[in-house]
Amino acid sequence: MKGPETESLPLRNIKLKISYDGSRFLGWQRQSEQAAGKGRTVQEEIEKALEKMHGHPVPLIGSGRTDSGVHAAGQAANFHTDIARIPPERFVPALNSLLPLDVRIMDSCEAPPSFHARFDARARTYRFFLYCGSRPCAHEMPYVWALGRWPDVRLLNRMASCLRGEIDCSAFTASGDQSKTRTRYLYGARFFPEGEKLVFEISANAFLWKMVRSILGTLIDLERRGAQAGEFSAILESRDRSRAGPTAPGTGLFLWDVRY
Amino acid sequence: MKGPETESLPLRNIKLKISYDGSRFLGWQRQSEQAAGKGRTVQEEIEKALEKMHGHPVPLIGSGRTDSGVHAAGQAANFHTDIARIPPERFVPALNSLLPLDVRIMDSCEAPPSFHARFDARARTYRFFLYCGSRPCAHEMPYVWALGRWPDVRLLNRMASCLRGEIDCSAFTASGDQSKTRTRYLYGARFFPEGEKLVFEISANAFLWKMVRSILGTLIDLERRGAQAGEFSAILESRDRSRAGPTAPGTGLFLWDVRY
Repeated sequence: MKGPETESLPLRNIKLKISYDGSRFLGWQRQSEQAAGKGRTVQEEIEKALEKMHGHPVPLIGSGRTDSGVHAAGQAANFHTDIARIPPERFVPALNSLLPLDVRIMDSCEAPPSFHARFDARARTYRFFLYCGSRPCAHEMPYVWALGRWPDVRLLNRMASCLRGEIDCSAFTASGDQSKTRTRYLYGARFFPEGEKLVFEISANAFLWKMVRSILGTLIDLERRGAQAGEFSAILESRDRSRAGPTAPGTGLFLWDVRY
Repeated sequence: MKGPETESLPLRNIKLKISYDGSRFLGWQRQSEQAAGKGRTVQEEIEKALEKMHGHPVPLIGSGRTDSGVHAAGQAANFHTDIARIPPERFVPALNSLLPLDVRIMDSCEAPPSFHARFDARARTYRFFLYCGSRPCAHEMPYVWALGRWPDVRLLNRMASCLRGEIDCSAFTASGDQSKTRTRYLYGARFFPEGEKLVFEISANAFLWKMVRSILGTLIDLERRGAQAGEFSAILESRDRSRAGPTAPGTGLFLWDVRY
């Protein structure tokens, strides 16, 4: 039970920027009761740290879930706190000292009382790292898809150029997706080289389940088979999931940034 | 049992360059019988892959052991093979396809019959990565020591400048070290910045147990306390282990290169 003193204080709304290594997580989202033994989730780890700090449960709202094995450089989340004495930026060291090393709080700041990390997000950006050199070292492996060759980057970019505007993305979702509508606003997608890696970057207001990996898997599959650029847009327009290619592995995928 | 045909073939001596992520290993060296349940070792993983390829056990000779949690970018090792049909460089993809992702063979070549990865090594180089920015992301954490501040690099380099030549390193070993002599030939040590990281690089003909971490822990400890450059060389010359500082954590340490 809270005392009358703390009850009279307005709750502050704290926004976090979070990086995590998805390798040993089932994903972002807290699992229902029975899944406790199956593995860890990022949301649970941070909520455990928040509960230690506050002495009572504090729900954490993420901008969206990420799947098992998927990483984040800039996941966003918010929570309401009744701790008045800590300046907002001090939640960074306070939480990091309680968190396992594969979850790191990168930033914290105070947000308006109504701010909601999921509903207010305007754009999510993902990056997918393809290792194109012949020999990734052991330290790269959890963070790349090792392609083992350089694909035709101009062809990939020509194909990806249709990923812009309001688009029905039904061709690129997984069968378990429960979204009401499959239309998303895409801000664009591009490939660019970075050392031995090729980066695929894609931004949208929101994504369907496994959409990034499904788009990328299809692009790489078409490129490998020497397809025409128009074949990708034809699959997109067909809205037919059975025409899409294989889903790329989760290891190379990072939730890179969330804009509000 | 080998048939007469394979017995008459000369064994080829294959040299490997190996990268590994030490995070989930007890270290390089195969453990004795009872330690099977305690965890994995890198030597064992590669010997298992070699046995699968050869159909019989193949001992692997490493340049030296690395401790639990310590990484490698360029560990060297050799083995003798009776497989005649594989060109030496093809052991890279053959072994990588059998190995877990946290061990990667970077190179393989044929060495002279008498080549021995341990006895013939002339210089080992280690690098230790200190993260000096305020906020390492989750993906950096297994590969750095997060110092959280920039130390005085000029002072560190002044102190480290005495690490050159034939030196009795008794002050910087762990109590379990079983070396007959504690004199090593040091080729030098230096600190240099690399983005948000400070790299400590040290080369010697060989190292005592925990020597790199002990030297680095002492240097950082002296720097933090604003010591004079001479205090480090006084500890080195004392040969007195009780005067050295704390041992740096294993996470930031990489066996970087072995020269023959």
